[in-house]
Amino acid sequence: MKEIIDSLRWKDGFIDVVITDQDKNVLMLVQMDKESFAKTLETGFIHYFSPVKFKPWKKGNSSGHTQKVLNIKVDCDNDALLISVKPSGGACHKGYHGCFYRKLNGKHWENSEKPEFDPRLIYPEFIFKG
Amino acid sequence: MKEIIDSLRWKDGFIDVVITDQDKNVLMLVQMDKESFAKTLETGFIHYFSPVKFKPWKKGNSSGHTQKVLNIKVDCDNDALLISVKPSGGACHKGYHGCFYRKLNGKHWENSEKPEFDPRLIYPEFIFKG
Repeated sequence: MKEIIDSLRWKDGFIDVVITDQDKNVLMLVQMDKESFAKTLETGFIHYFSPVKFKPWKKGNSSGHTQKVLNIKVDCDNDALLISVKPSGGACHKGYHGCFYRKLNGKHWENSEKPEFDPRLIYPEFIFKG
Repeated sequence: MKEIIDSLRWKDGFIDVVITDQDKNVLMLVQMDKESFAKTLETGFIHYFSPVKFKPWKKGNSSGHTQKVLNIKVDCDNDALLISVKPSGGACHKGYHGCFYRKLNGKHWENSEKPEFDPRLIYPEFIFKG
């Protein structure tokens, strides 16, 4: 595992990771530190560095919406990863399948998808944080 | 256009942009500054901030492999974009359709795609830069 971790170019200890589902939809763009990436490799489930909790975090640990790793790709200069996953629920804390649910329409971002779940039931902490 | 630019969360003047083709394949992860993004909106062709040239750069300006914008999405916290494009040639300077052409196989990254073009003919400057 060390060999794989050392093959990557970490910027200030982090690497950008694009997460897609099995149908190639881009779900989210996250950052992993070495510990999150190691846990992802070890467990086969996405762990990322949570900017809210400020530590490695298993995706779905509180929501139940885990992401099982299907395959991992690296880009040409070793500073970005593309991980395909099988999600067990919507990836976005706003209730959507993925985070990119708004599309540019003229001068405005317009909602282009329907939510998969009610975020107030899954992420009650965000109600208070706004 | 200012309204759209101001709606985004720029980190040190930059935003991460995932580029996909019309078949949802992730081609590359790039960074745009406000000027690159404005030029992308104005022209309908991807401009990104080139870390090599250290300035905004039209993708394909030297290679001819441009990327025509099909649609633009934004993520839930306004700090990442997902742009679908119609590419006129391989996106990666190593000759591949996209930059994520290597897949993790056990302890090694293994090439999982065939190149679309000979990079020595398109990007001669990279021969000398290694």
